[in-house]
Amino acid sequence: MVGYDIQDILDHIDGEFPTSLERLFEFLRFPSIATDPAHAEDCLHTAQWVKSMCEGLGFKTTIHATTGQPVIVAKYEPPAQVLAGHRHVPHVLFYGHYDVQPADPVELWVTPPFEPRIAPGKDGRACIYARGACDDKGQVMTFIEASRAWLKVVGHLPCRVTVLIEGDEEGDAEHLDRFVAANKNLLKSDVAWVCDTGLWEPQLPAIVTSLRGCIAEEVTISGPRIDLHSGYFGGPAINPIKVLSSILSDMHDARGHITIPGFYDGVKKLSPAQRHARRRIPFSEKHFLKEVGLSKAVGEADFNVLEQLWDRPTAEINGIWGGYTGVGGKTVLPAEASAKLTFRLVLGQKPGKARAAFRKYVRSKLPGDCKARFTSHGGFSSGVKIEDKSRWIEKAQAALKNEWGVDPVLVGEGGSVPVVEGFKRHLGIDSVCVGFCNEDDALHSPNEKYNVESYQRGAHFWARYFHEIAKD
Amino acid sequence: MVGYDIQDILDHIDGEFPTSLERLFEFLRFPSIATDPAHAEDCLHTAQWVKSMCEGLGFKTTIHATTGQPVIVAKYEPPAQVLAGHRHVPHVLFYGHYDVQPADPVELWVTPPFEPRIAPGKDGRACIYARGACDDKGQVMTFIEASRAWLKVVGHLPCRVTVLIEGDEEGDAEHLDRFVAANKNLLKSDVAWVCDTGLWEPQLPAIVTSLRGCIAEEVTISGPRIDLHSGYFGGPAINPIKVLSSILSDMHDARGHITIPGFYDGVKKLSPAQRHARRRIPFSEKHFLKEVGLSKAVGEADFNVLEQLWDRPTAEINGIWGGYTGVGGKTVLPAEASAKLTFRLVLGQKPGKARAAFRKYVRSKLPGDCKARFTSHGGFSSGVKIEDKSRWIEKAQAALKNEWGVDPVLVGEGGSVPVVEGFKRHLGIDSVCVGFCNEDDALHSPNEKYNVESYQRGAHFWARYFHEIAKD
Repeated sequence: MVGYDIQDILDHIDGEFPTSLERLFEFLRFPSIATDPAHAEDCLHTAQWVKSMCEGLGFKTTIHATTGQPVIVAKYEPPAQVLAGHRHVPHVLFYGHYDVQPADPVELWVTPPFEPRIAPGKDGRACIYARGACDDKGQVMTFIEASRAWLKVVGHLPCRVTVLIEGDEEGDAEHLDRFVAANKNLLKSDVAWVCDTGLWEPQLPAIVTSLRGCIAEEVTISGPRIDLHSGYFGGPAINPIKVLSSILSDMHDARGHITIPGFYDGVKKLSPAQRHARRRIPFSEKHFLKEVGLSKAVGEADFNVLEQLWDRPTAEINGIWGGYTGVGGKTVLPAEASAKLTFRLVLGQKPGKARAAFRKYVRSKLPGDCKARFTSHGGFSSGVKIEDKSRWIEKAQAALKNEWGVDPVLVGEGGSVPVVEGFKRHLGIDSVCVGFCNEDDALHSPNEKYNVESYQRGAHFWARYFHEIAKD
Repeated sequence: MVGYDIQDILDHIDGEFPTSLERLFEFLRFPSIATDPAHAEDCLHTAQWVKSMCEGLGFKTTIHATTGQPVIVAKYEPPAQVLAGHRHVPHVLFYGHYDVQPADPVELWVTPPFEPRIAPGKDGRACIYARGACDDKGQVMTFIEASRAWLKVVGHLPCRVTVLIEGDEEGDAEHLDRFVAANKNLLKSDVAWVCDTGLWEPQLPAIVTSLRGCIAEEVTISGPRIDLHSGYFGGPAINPIKVLSSILSDMHDARGHITIPGFYDGVKKLSPAQRHARRRIPFSEKHFLKEVGLSKAVGEADFNVLEQLWDRPTAEINGIWGGYTGVGGKTVLPAEASAKLTFRLVLGQKPGKARAAFRKYVRSKLPGDCKARFTSHGGFSSGVKIEDKSRWIEKAQAALKNEWGVDPVLVGEGGSVPVVEGFKRHLGIDSVCVGFCNEDDALHSPNEKYNVESYQRGAHFWARYFHEIAKD
């Protein structure tokens, strides 16, 4: 495949950068918080906007209802003359998500979360501030803008492309899992390109080859029939906040080990080679913790921080509430107390078994007068490991090196991109996980941002990745 | 003092009962939640309503600004001919409060908390449902209606009366304490009649002769600088919810003993005679717990339930919150977590020392990367004991026996009426604590109620108590 110069495509991306920013800002203005039913209509509008965007590229685009939020599937078929010259034109499945995390606590945002703006970050570099700027709308648009530039400059893309943009990544992964399972033909492809991860350092790109899975649980402990007066009942009456605190407190031992019986079932011992590879990755535990105001790692004492984050499962409390939480005081002894938890899982753990182990653990700790009830909040996914040496990884390594001038690192990922495991299971394909977030992007926190440089270089990368394919 | 028949006064109370209910309903419609600044104006309106009510009785009434909510003082001086015939006409200080507890969780109320209604209770007896019906607006009105009947039937009251109605009983007791300290002359009297307690059984009245004090603390544990993604930081990063849970969980040992060093300083050992007196009170631990859906007392294992409630201090968690508490899930590791606590204190404990002990305990349990900050929420009062054998107690016993036909019991009180200790300290007077709440009145809980019988017999009691004084 000849007749173009990759530099022209990169120049086109740079020349069109202001209008590509405008398109991203439109995308960021949708408060597409899929986990909050109040935003259901916003999510639908966001999906419709994504559909229009893909149609604007000339992709054949459809919106699909799912058991969760609508999914957009956009398909591109190269023209006959491109297909003619090749034995096998590959088919790439690009994946991203349009849903975002809730924005609260909203009062901690410098400017409103759904009014994107560009402002200098702490280091003076220009950043795009908005909920979803980085996770994942900005990342999705790097691919869209790279495709746009290719189509404008070359006239076509060098391969078949299916774009899959979903709306339940921050919520219940089972919705997309069901959709993928039910649409294997529609999504049939050779590889998935998943853009929902980060750079290792601002000038050092990374490819993620292992990911933790996740299960999310909500537990409510109930005790007395009604809220009680803490003076008239305090002492003899059991306090559900106390019971919940005790259960959560006992979930780890003094060395950070999770005490839930059976929770570690299936977790593989790290080989000396694996531990060695982790230690070769440039990483300062001290700096990692200092960035967020901490000085000491409190995970499992027998593992270093990267192992705690990538190779070991965790049990985290995401929220807790019970009794009176308003202004001033109230001498109440509440009837119940609740917590939300997520458990990060690694290769070998079964989500269903881990959930059952947690629920059994809670019930085993309940005093006689207390009951527990549970709800699952999606995120039901296994940990996954991707083959390090494949043509797709090698091409991504080349494209990253050409853009950044350095060899990318192969890393793990503490967060969950459950779709990677789903693509493997349902479609039989591996994923190439490349993204352009920076460590200080405040994902899931107030004042989330995406570096302007990430947006630009991200688009360059996808253009270069297409270029690597075109070489075949 | 002759020229009247007590039965005429009681009959008058009964005859006027419907209009006295209307007056109480007016009182109950004010959402006088003093601990919530949003209700400041409601509290002022409530105070003005109380003032009008007292003026309607012919009492010389003033509203006093305080460091908290306004206080109403209403004074009654018997006519010269009443005073003439006696060496010493006693002076009684009646105390009650117009502020109420917050009404949340409002969704658990069968009808709105500030729209009083009469409906049958579980046992079929007529009840007045509203926030404050029992605590303390209904109780205050029993005295007002008894006075009204005396004035109507007899033409005057048999003694000097000062009515003191405050608005900070559910909040910071220091406001009234300062007011009493600064107005000793205005409030000078021989005894306080405090109407903020309950019946022992529906047909067995009680006089409270010991009360627990209270301190209220709010603590916030902070860790990471910002909310973190639980996937990217979960494991190594410390979780303030976890730290708070652990601190709260460790606050009691397995036998219900409070582990805070120094907390029990000054607590007196119970004498065999005291323990014997407690055991003579008709009381079923099983029934007490069963009423609120419980079966087992979890207070200090070495004490029975009445001792746990009256003679021993407690540490209770009233509320807890941190992280994401909205709909669905959020994979956040929060920057901080908070709890509200109250500590019930007994005679001998110093509130300031108990507070300092708690704060020191929390700080001693903090891991390196966490900080704690504290706020006090009023309720800063000591435990108190009242002399069992006095003419005022004896007259109250007589009046109670005449109304209910049985000897009242002398009991303790697990809740706090801090003013009793303040009256003793500032005015040098004891209090007679008599009230008409029932065990199932749901004080501080949704669907608070006051039995119609309590409202009627309460008014009878005060009329009879006046009658006992008139006999002198």
